[in-house]
Amino acid sequence: MAGNNFGEVFRITTFGESHGGAVGVVVDGVTPGVDISEEDIQKELDRRKPGQSSVTTPRKEPDRAHLLSGIFQGKTTGTPLLVILYNSDADPSAYDDIKDLFRPGHADYTYLKKYGLRDWRGSGRASGRETAGRVAAGAIAKKILASRGISATAYTRASAGITCRTYQPDEIEKNPLRACDPEAAGEMLRKISAIQETQDSVGGIIECRLQGVPAGLGEPVFDKLDAELARAMLSIGSVKGIEFGAGFAAAAMTGSEHNDEMTPAGFSTNHAGGIIGGISTGEEIIFRVAVKPTSSIARPQQTVDTGGTARTIRTEGRHDACICPRIVPVIEAMAAIVLLDHLKRQTALHSPA
Amino acid sequence: MAGNNFGEVFRITTFGESHGGAVGVVVDGVTPGVDISEEDIQKELDRRKPGQSSVTTPRKEPDRAHLLSGIFQGKTTGTPLLVILYNSDADPSAYDDIKDLFRPGHADYTYLKKYGLRDWRGSGRASGRETAGRVAAGAIAKKILASRGISATAYTRASAGITCRTYQPDEIEKNPLRACDPEAAGEMLRKISAIQETQDSVGGIIECRLQGVPAGLGEPVFDKLDAELARAMLSIGSVKGIEFGAGFAAAAMTGSEHNDEMTPAGFSTNHAGGIIGGISTGEEIIFRVAVKPTSSIARPQQTVDTGGTARTIRTEGRHDACICPRIVPVIEAMAAIVLLDHLKRQTALHSPA
Amino acid sequence: MAGNNFGEVFRITTFGESHGGAVGVVVDGVTPGVDISEEDIQKELDRRKPGQSSVTTPRKEPDRAHLLSGIFQGKTTGTPLLVILYNSDADPSAYDDIKDLFRPGHADYTYLKKYGLRDWRGSGRASGRETAGRVAAGAIAKKILASRGISATAYTRASAGITCRTYQPDEIEKNPLRACDPEAAGEMLRKISAIQETQDSVGGIIECRLQGVPAGLGEPVFDKLDAELARAMLSIGSVKGIEFGAGFAAAAMTGSEHNDEMTPAGFSTNHAGGIIGGISTGEEIIFRVAVKPTSSIARPQQTVDTGGTARTIRTEGRHDACICPRIVPVIEAMAAIVLLDHLKRQTALHSPA
Amino acid sequence: MAGNNFGEVFRITTFGESHGGAVGVVVDGVTPGVDISEEDIQKELDRRKPGQSSVTTPRKEPDRAHLLSGIFQGKTTGTPLLVILYNSDADPSAYDDIKDLFRPGHADYTYLKKYGLRDWRGSGRASGRETAGRVAAGAIAKKILASRGISATAYTRASAGITCRTYQPDEIEKNPLRACDPEAAGEMLRKISAIQETQDSVGGIIECRLQGVPAGLGEPVFDKLDAELARAMLSIGSVKGIEFGAGFAAAAMTGSEHNDEMTPAGFSTNHAGGIIGGISTGEEIIFRVAVKPTSSIARPQQTVDTGGTARTIRTEGRHDACICPRIVPVIEAMAAIVLLDHLKRQTALHSPA
Repeated sequence: MAGNNFGEVFRITTFGESHGGAVGVVVDGVTPGVDISEEDIQKELDRRKPGQSSVTTPRKEPDRAHLLSGIFQGKTTGTPLLVILYNSDADPSAYDDIKDLFRPGHADYTYLKKYGLRDWRGSGRASGRETAGRVAAGAIAKKILASRGISATAYTRASAGITCRTYQPDEIEKNPLRACDPEAAGEMLRKISAIQETQDSVGGIIECRLQGVPAGLGEPVFDKLDAELARAMLSIGSVKGIEFGAGFAAAAMTGSEHNDEMTPAGFSTNHAGGIIGGISTGEEIIFRVAVKPTSSIARPQQTVDTGGTARTIRTEGRHDACICPRIVPVIEAMAAIVLLDHLKRQTALHSPA
Repeated sequence: MAGNNFGEVFRITTFGESHGGAVGVVVDGVTPGVDISEEDIQKELDRRKPGQSSVTTPRKEPDRAHLLSGIFQGKTTGTPLLVILYNSDADPSAYDDIKDLFRPGHADYTYLKKYGLRDWRGSGRASGRETAGRVAAGAIAKKILASRGISATAYTRASAGITCRTYQPDEIEKNPLRACDPEAAGEMLRKISAIQETQDSVGGIIECRLQGVPAGLGEPVFDKLDAELARAMLSIGSVKGIEFGAGFAAAAMTGSEHNDEMTPAGFSTNHAGGIIGGISTGEEIIFRVAVKPTSSIARPQQTVDTGGTARTIRTEGRHDACICPRIVPVIEAMAAIVLLDHLKRQTALHSPA
Repeated sequence: MAGNNFGEVFRITTFGESHGGAVGVVVDGVTPGVDISEEDIQKELDRRKPGQSSVTTPRKEPDRAHLLSGIFQGKTTGTPLLVILYNSDADPSAYDDIKDLFRPGHADYTYLKKYGLRDWRGSGRASGRETAGRVAAGAIAKKILASRGISATAYTRASAGITCRTYQPDEIEKNPLRACDPEAAGEMLRKISAIQETQDSVGGIIECRLQGVPAGLGEPVFDKLDAELARAMLSIGSVKGIEFGAGFAAAAMTGSEHNDEMTPAGFSTNHAGGIIGGISTGEEIIFRVAVKPTSSIARPQQTVDTGGTARTIRTEGRHDACICPRIVPVIEAMAAIVLLDHLKRQTALHSPA
Repeated sequence: MAGNNFGEVFRITTFGESHGGAVGVVVDGVTPGVDISEEDIQKELDRRKPGQSSVTTPRKEPDRAHLLSGIFQGKTTGTPLLVILYNSDADPSAYDDIKDLFRPGHADYTYLKKYGLRDWRGSGRASGRETAGRVAAGAIAKKILASRGISATAYTRASAGITCRTYQPDEIEKNPLRACDPEAAGEMLRKISAIQETQDSVGGIIECRLQGVPAGLGEPVFDKLDAELARAMLSIGSVKGIEFGAGFAAAAMTGSEHNDEMTPAGFSTNHAGGIIGGISTGEEIIFRVAVKPTSSIARPQQTVDTGGTARTIRTEGRHDACICPRIVPVIEAMAAIVLLDHLKRQTALHSPA
């Protein structure tokens, strides 16, 4: 109803605003008896945290995870896990000047229209900081999935108009863009630096591959695996589109080109992106999401204030010129949560009794 | 859990297979006291039914809606509505030859992997016929929305490699493609006929506009309006992607290009597609979905049978060369259901008590 | 939200009114590959149908179950099952005289207050006829549970002020009260006949035993097994209370009396009724529900009409002097649905991934 | 699925164990713009906290509520509220001796059977301390309901075999039993003291009245208001039964005795307890719950250890001789949550769009 939980069996509920007391997540439906430590969670959070490179915000948040329930002697007990991150670098006074202005591209206007009031410190609940809770929950999901040989790997495929030409998975975590082609990554970095100097920002395309997913996951007709992944991805701020396999290119193909033929050795192609009829085929699942350019730019923009008067705004402060590398772990987290939830759903639905 | 219902307040549950006894829908959460007749529902079903033109299947299904509960003296009573369509043109013997073969592009393989057995008559539950229940429910949602001045209009934007160059809403229902540009529609029709003769099929891009939607709809952080629309659209067979507003093009824009500035007269642009932070802005909501080419083609294709042996298959029979015009009403139905559901959710969440 | 579905994994959605086109149920989350026939369902429906004895209504409803989806070659396919019962003995004209009057004890007044309009033919959605859908779904659940050695047995424990003195399970289906003590059943029958002659009705207490339930079922802290059974039972019309094990008598016991001690051979007593901390202990689950006397009585009663004017009403027609024997199968059905749903939930939650 | 959330629109998710890092609640679906302070919450928590009298445990927990999200400038923002209570008086070493023993009446055995492992410090998740989160959420619900003139009042009706003979609402908070009859309260206190000296405990019956509830609340056919209240109450540890209005006594009444006749001035009686057909009548809602005697008693009891060996156990430590006065605020909290949730559901379902 209110939209702060996700998943049916493995269910997460996130809470918190960028400048309130804390952000975090309650994770319910975790298998009992699993080894989970704060370090398992911290490792993923560190990939999302600010200050990792020149293209991302220098805001300093230790983003330290505290695991306060659901654990006994290092193992999950089957009861809800609370992961909480206290807000320490919260400096709301930085927002005093713009508290009555709607920042273009931000949710300021829509939050005020929806709720009738707005926490104007940072982006409040609409802040990317909310995703820390998702990444924490995703760390747990990823660990459980790994024991079944299932992994989620996302990376920047394109940014600032430059597209990767190779796919080198080992290079992803070695460049600040988390791009899959180190050469293209270098070009992106130079292009982004130039755009940063004009007080502007860029977007990109992130691709994600889910490997080891058995055939049979996804619940027709509404909770199809691609439908659920689409919801999960579009629930991430800045994401404006998603496509699976051949995606939008399929619209201009013929049936004989697009259909994935089968041979005794398996599927000949994977235009479907690993999902047919909303159910995993056993092939690699592959999808791409469109990430819009960061809304916060220092360049002056036209806007209005809450009274409707025309104003000019410059969103000063600590912002990401390109948010892609920090969204990568969020996408992996959400994908892992969808997969684990569907594995558990499948188990329930097909159990003899 | 099992994925056959959609919506939280206005909730639909569809049932039925292409060659079982019936297909249909239970619609729950309908406002009491609304005038609804079988004719209101039939009108929308007629837009989806087969046999409307040369590009769609000639299969003859009267698709007659029977409204068997939830209605008294022509008005909804607040109890669940059952809309049922009996299957009359069911000729399962046509499938005898291919019951052990996996049709490329179809869900035959994934259904068998998932459920361990498969209703091989037509596509069973994976048949497009299941969407009749959605369209029936959508007809109810559209009627209720219309009384609030809200509408959903979908149309073919591109097909067979041809893209509409104009947007003429009055022309949509006048051409067999339901394209928004009658000239482009003519070109599409000729191109599709030529491809049909080669025993092949085409896909397309459908665009949808939601008008009259007030600012404030959508439930952060997981049930954002775009996330819910994405789930709804990707739950439709053949849909392989979705994008809002500038969509994938946003990935190559800068922040200053993409941000929609505001003036006292409103937003200057609508690159966001009417949704920011997952909440409607009050602008027109606009999105596009990618539709893959029809999987059923008479041209021979390589496949395997259930025993894993290589086989050649030709999917003879009554198929749509281009499914786009028949998906248009399904997209409108699902969009209407999402909107009505979110209007009701918003009302509940913001009610004083 | 709207309250017409029950269960999370094994989920039922009932529809229909007593004098509309049909009543029935959509059953989702059924294990694929299970043998289910219309006869399996009919057998249970026949226990609920009217006209079985002198203490129940002579209304004639063949209550014939039609299974229209989710089945292929006699086996469930994993897709939703539609079970529909068409209304044939619907004679709404019998209600013309009282359509503006509120029958004491009936939901006439509350339905009108809630929905603003009311289907006054019979009791509409509030009719006991709605439970046919539950019994149909319960028949499926019972069959699946039986394969795991789990059963639900309900019976009349007390009625018309007479309480069973013995528990003879083999006698339950042999007397019209479905009482567990044939001697007490005879006394009840005589007492009820006498009360019937005064144009009045009686209630009773139904006891239910769930056998073969493994330890470990129930989901703390809100979906405890007793909490879910309580919701299920109180959702049945006429039920006004429930107690587990020692129940209300526990309120006057001491801890040393009530606590069930354990020995190497198991629990020494079962005051808890087979559930501790909301989780099954492995002992027999035992609970009792209070059934109010049938509201429809021919004796004149004071009431008002929809305009608020004082009126006298006599609810003529075909009514149950004692509804207990017809509620027995409904209680078993709901208990079976709760158990199967929780078995499947447990499986999902505890699956390694 | 996992059972740690409750409510559909006004939805709570509790977390935490008695001896973990913290207990608390995430409250979602709170109306934006409502004044809520930590003091509003603390006031109710203080009614539940230990150490209030000789009949309750002297365990010292400040039970201080921290409100860390969802609030801005003293008002709710429409985003989730996190209320957290850190555990400070946690002394797990007290449980070292009995960590391998199953305490009779406690959930030790069932938790181990269900989850395969068990947090043996205190009662872990099964501890009454979990209800602090419910009381915190209930404080918010009660405040919102009060603005609509709706209240929930619970009190001890019977304990230690003594039943209140008068109903004096002003006396409830003035005696340590929270009984509605001060004279009976005195008798209870003396009787309980005597039983305490024998190292034993008592149970009781708590009655609850919901006032100001408008007619029309409750969602047939499964989410009837009494069904939801029953689930809510049975989800509280120690509660073993519930009855509405005449309750179990109705089983021995005739229809003419039990039916609440109507006159132009309203209902003549309220045997239904304010709910007919699962929908509120507008009369006072009244129900009673059976509370079992406190399981923890110092008197020696037979049990087994995790290896199955017979053992004798004495549950030493700080326990409640009678838990009734501390359950009273929990019952009010759960009732308030059910009512607020249903008010919001009703608003959504009946909104024109």
